[in-house]
Amino acid sequence: MTKPIRCGMVGGGEGAFIGGVHRAAMRLDGLWDLQAASLCSDPDRSLASAEAISIDRGYGTWQEMLDAEVGQLDCITVVTPNDSHAEIATAALDKGFHVMLDKPMTRTLAEAELLAAVAAESDRNLFVTYTYAGYPMVRKAAEIVASGAIGAVRTVSAEYRQGWLATAVEKEGQKQASWRTDPSRSGAGALGDIGCHAEFMVRFVSGLAIEQVRGDVRTLIEGRSVDDHAAVQLRLTDDIPGDMVVSQVCTGERNDVNIRIWGDSGSIAWSHERCDQLVHTDADASQHILHRGDSRVPIGHPEGFVEAFANIYAEAAKCMRGTDARVPDYRDGLAGIQFIDAVLRSAESGQWVEV
Amino acid sequence: MTKPIRCGMVGGGEGAFIGGVHRAAMRLDGLWDLQAASLCSDPDRSLASAEAISIDRGYGTWQEMLDAEVGQLDCITVVTPNDSHAEIATAALDKGFHVMLDKPMTRTLAEAELLAAVAAESDRNLFVTYTYAGYPMVRKAAEIVASGAIGAVRTVSAEYRQGWLATAVEKEGQKQASWRTDPSRSGAGALGDIGCHAEFMVRFVSGLAIEQVRGDVRTLIEGRSVDDHAAVQLRLTDDIPGDMVVSQVCTGERNDVNIRIWGDSGSIAWSHERCDQLVHTDADASQHILHRGDSRVPIGHPEGFVEAFANIYAEAAKCMRGTDARVPDYRDGLAGIQFIDAVLRSAESGQWVEV
Amino acid sequence: MTKPIRCGMVGGGEGAFIGGVHRAAMRLDGLWDLQAASLCSDPDRSLASAEAISIDRGYGTWQEMLDAEVGQLDCITVVTPNDSHAEIATAALDKGFHVMLDKPMTRTLAEAELLAAVAAESDRNLFVTYTYAGYPMVRKAAEIVASGAIGAVRTVSAEYRQGWLATAVEKEGQKQASWRTDPSRSGAGALGDIGCHAEFMVRFVSGLAIEQVRGDVRTLIEGRSVDDHAAVQLRLTDDIPGDMVVSQVCTGERNDVNIRIWGDSGSIAWSHERCDQLVHTDADASQHILHRGDSRVPIGHPEGFVEAFANIYAEAAKCMRGTDARVPDYRDGLAGIQFIDAVLRSAESGQWVEV
Amino acid sequence: MTKPIRCGMVGGGEGAFIGGVHRAAMRLDGLWDLQAASLCSDPDRSLASAEAISIDRGYGTWQEMLDAEVGQLDCITVVTPNDSHAEIATAALDKGFHVMLDKPMTRTLAEAELLAAVAAESDRNLFVTYTYAGYPMVRKAAEIVASGAIGAVRTVSAEYRQGWLATAVEKEGQKQASWRTDPSRSGAGALGDIGCHAEFMVRFVSGLAIEQVRGDVRTLIEGRSVDDHAAVQLRLTDDIPGDMVVSQVCTGERNDVNIRIWGDSGSIAWSHERCDQLVHTDADASQHILHRGDSRVPIGHPEGFVEAFANIYAEAAKCMRGTDARVPDYRDGLAGIQFIDAVLRSAESGQWVEV
Repeated sequence: MTKPIRCGMVGGGEGAFIGGVHRAAMRLDGLWDLQAASLCSDPDRSLASAEAISIDRGYGTWQEMLDAEVGQLDCITVVTPNDSHAEIATAALDKGFHVMLDKPMTRTLAEAELLAAVAAESDRNLFVTYTYAGYPMVRKAAEIVASGAIGAVRTVSAEYRQGWLATAVEKEGQKQASWRTDPSRSGAGALGDIGCHAEFMVRFVSGLAIEQVRGDVRTLIEGRSVDDHAAVQLRLTDDIPGDMVVSQVCTGERNDVNIRIWGDSGSIAWSHERCDQLVHTDADASQHILHRGDSRVPIGHPEGFVEAFANIYAEAAKCMRGTDARVPDYRDGLAGIQFIDAVLRSAESGQWVEV
Repeated sequence: MTKPIRCGMVGGGEGAFIGGVHRAAMRLDGLWDLQAASLCSDPDRSLASAEAISIDRGYGTWQEMLDAEVGQLDCITVVTPNDSHAEIATAALDKGFHVMLDKPMTRTLAEAELLAAVAAESDRNLFVTYTYAGYPMVRKAAEIVASGAIGAVRTVSAEYRQGWLATAVEKEGQKQASWRTDPSRSGAGALGDIGCHAEFMVRFVSGLAIEQVRGDVRTLIEGRSVDDHAAVQLRLTDDIPGDMVVSQVCTGERNDVNIRIWGDSGSIAWSHERCDQLVHTDADASQHILHRGDSRVPIGHPEGFVEAFANIYAEAAKCMRGTDARVPDYRDGLAGIQFIDAVLRSAESGQWVEV
Repeated sequence: MTKPIRCGMVGGGEGAFIGGVHRAAMRLDGLWDLQAASLCSDPDRSLASAEAISIDRGYGTWQEMLDAEVGQLDCITVVTPNDSHAEIATAALDKGFHVMLDKPMTRTLAEAELLAAVAAESDRNLFVTYTYAGYPMVRKAAEIVASGAIGAVRTVSAEYRQGWLATAVEKEGQKQASWRTDPSRSGAGALGDIGCHAEFMVRFVSGLAIEQVRGDVRTLIEGRSVDDHAAVQLRLTDDIPGDMVVSQVCTGERNDVNIRIWGDSGSIAWSHERCDQLVHTDADASQHILHRGDSRVPIGHPEGFVEAFANIYAEAAKCMRGTDARVPDYRDGLAGIQFIDAVLRSAESGQWVEV
Repeated sequence: MTKPIRCGMVGGGEGAFIGGVHRAAMRLDGLWDLQAASLCSDPDRSLASAEAISIDRGYGTWQEMLDAEVGQLDCITVVTPNDSHAEIATAALDKGFHVMLDKPMTRTLAEAELLAAVAAESDRNLFVTYTYAGYPMVRKAAEIVASGAIGAVRTVSAEYRQGWLATAVEKEGQKQASWRTDPSRSGAGALGDIGCHAEFMVRFVSGLAIEQVRGDVRTLIEGRSVDDHAAVQLRLTDDIPGDMVVSQVCTGERNDVNIRIWGDSGSIAWSHERCDQLVHTDADASQHILHRGDSRVPIGHPEGFVEAFANIYAEAAKCMRGTDARVPDYRDGLAGIQFIDAVLRSAESGQWVEV
């Protein structure tokens, strides 16, 4: 058997959410081996955290880890708040590591452009964990659209609504909320945190570029410093219209992510809530429900979010070994930041703006 | 038993769709009696049509019917193409008939303003058949929002997507399509035909006004003379944001009408596809599915579109007899036309415009 | 236009449920004209009831109506409790009326056999309102099975669960409950009231006969005199297995009726809750959702229970005019009673019994 | 951090399905460490298999592994075909290992009784992987029933339908099918493979015992040597009725597992297809959809089959460390085999039989 990819993690200590998902995803298929980590910005807590979760080689700082692990690790997973993404990823690429970077790629457009330039020059991969690309039925949707089965794309609709920021939990010490609503750490708010997922899905499934946007961007919770709700009109390649809503203040929403694409001869629709299926509708309105087939588990046995994440890790492992695989990379990461930036500019100017 | 309301119909002859629904709705509960009609613009076909569907007193023209039936009919139902709504409804009110007018109220804003002025002066009712107000669970949704059960409204999303105009069927002689895509008869396209339904639902369920709009309005089928697809950003009372999409070119869509409203403490969601239920979600994400209770048929026995229509007729009968009932009227009709006009103006100017 | 069928009604006065549905169904399409009625067993209330709902010719007793209306009515609709079905239907056929009889056909098997013999000899039709045969997608299901599209039938599952008798409402004066739980009026309980619907659907959709049954029949509400819950194993034509549950004591169930049939190469599934659609599954597990097409209202506009009923009336009108149409008739009615009887016998003997 | 449980596996080599699920479940949370294995009955393939999937210590035979690993492993996972369960599990317990045994517990009732006796005497745990007990919302359902929130249980319905044996795939060399349809290896067919899941869910969620059964047990595929379809009537504690269908020949079914329980004051319903939710219905028919809350991933992020399995492993780890946790054990395993045996006896005798 091929040896697992040797991995080190930056960020993802106590109170974090996505670090644990990355670790579970790495473990699930046995294709990755998390050997080293610098889990917190505080060196002592970083070492303690690594021990607490049984990581072999804990480090006080990510700089120490990168220095010490050259040649011993293949990849660095970065799950820190957005403001340190660029610096850490750049350093890791520079030292010859592949990088698995949590979205959004960076805090600012300037950082994204610089990082993308570094990545483009590097012979290492910079992956961005746009989770939804890991769902088999999202991939199937993209294949169906690409196959021409729904005809030329006519319009696209994407939605990502959550409710967890429906009140000012950042003022109650909720750690996830506090950095995400601090523009000095996150950049944008809902647009940065989940808008980039919606943006990626639109491009990934439709195969089109988002060329212009016009957003109505809001901060609905009084006193919050970032956007938490946005409705965005889209102009895709060839002036194809699209609509998108991203919100983190839709009270009671769990995590409603969905995408629908209508073409000249039919449509496809995918919703996160029923992630293992895909609805393909014909022009005559008959609907075909396609189900995920045999995978880690047979057809009819549900897979979920961790599995989607693990699919991205599995594909990334292939890429790192030279096999062609479609894993979101620095170009996708940059596109996401460009999108966020354009929506914010359009909100300021009240005009359509180029992405 | 109270005698049925005596009714005459204008329009709704062969090849029409909504005329038959009005007739079925009138028959369903036995509260209305369609006694007279002028079903077509052609006098001979009009008489033949009336005979073919066993209407007692057929007329060649609506003018003849109005003249002859004063005192014999209580109400005139108008189901002609939009361009004749204003003239017929005005004449009917002038002669002392109540009017049941199919939506949209008129073809143009100028007509709507004039007709609304006439209706405001009249002691007769002018009802507009915004069908969705007739669904018990849409009414229930409005009650829930009004009760404060979801808290202050935070955002609203409405969608109305159809696929029947996904190709240029108007060029193949489809009668429904041909007048609806002829701006001289319909005014607007999708915005006029179904946008006004979406607009009414937003106001009816949220209890808010739509104050500003910014629409991305498209004609996606080449050679068509009216809009067939629009994404609209909304600013409701107190700057509450909303989003809306109306389209008649979403290939394969049957008739996807839905509305969702999020408040500070929960949300409600209604979809036409499951018209007999309503989802009420709490802030903690638990969902409560409310079902239509006993009605014409007991709970658990589906009702549909004709029943919703019949509910409007039943409520209208109450109004005509002096009982207070919420039936869409000339103010709602005017609001619909103002909305359509504003969206079209915003599409031209590229700016937010006042409704 | 063809003249409507002239109809008289027996039963269906105040406090009844199904009489009102029959009347609405008759009105919906304008194909039937309810001209006369004897709505209650009490002559005075019968006359008053007829006047209250504006029926032209009220009668104190059904005998009077039958005597007086020979030649003036085409059909008698019978919606009395089960114990009078046989006598009234026999008399109506004898006098030359067609009969529309609510299910179940009779109270006892002996009555059913006699009535079926009378109907077989008569040149008039005896229809039985097995409502579910009126749903377009149930008909479509039967067509799909008959077409061979799912291959040879392998197994059948039918379920009809309600909750309205989950408590002893018959002791609180609920009129619907009181006769239905009185064996001297109803015959069987849940088996009689809804078991016959399930039985008919199995035969109607599968095209197979139910040859043997083995039921576990229960009275779950203490003090009730009839069955209110039954699980039944079925042996259909060629020993094909089936399973069925009918219950009126499943607390909180609205009216859960569904049927699924698996064949060698696929399956169909229909559920009352989404009556306008049908799921057709292939052997490879891909599902196709078929939707009711244009009907009284276009595709995507829901129809419901009254419409299903009206479809039976419409088909019956065709039959009465000599056109071939599949309307449940005395043979279906007899099969239902034979089924009920067989299930009850099997419950007593603890053995499989022939239907 | 507590050290992971050290585990060895018997069975689960190439072509097996459930072995891989056990391994993924062990890895997912990092609480288990699979260190040794004897994956196949053939020693050479066993060693090669262990190497292929990077297990540290491969063995040619399970006997060698048990002998060599005393003191080095905490637990033996047994995922062989049913006929070797008893022997391996007994030997493992005897040598002081805990045992994680795939369902059904054994091939025969005699074996189950002996193994249960051994387990009862042992100070080691014998766990049985009844997967569905690992789903959070199945656990929640059991809690709701136990809390009295639906009142006294009135009736139970369970269903487990698959389609993968809808044709004689065992004759085409499908390895999973071939031992499962060979009574000398599997014991029963569908009843053994999935009937025990349905049986466990009924007991687990209702909290009741299954006291009597009456099954209609079939072999619908010609030439097959085991049952592949069964409808079973149940008598639970206090004569509460239940109904169950298990089938592996329902063409096109993916893996339809569901359970519904009605009590005096409401009901609960769970379906595998939407495993992260639970429907709780009140007596007034309003439905409450409960969603899985934060877990490995936050609310709204789907979990699936592997996660359910991992939950069982996590609970088992707690048990092994002395914390009280509800993991299916030898008593549950024995109950499953007793149930299968009783259903088969009832099919032979045509009578209700005691479980």
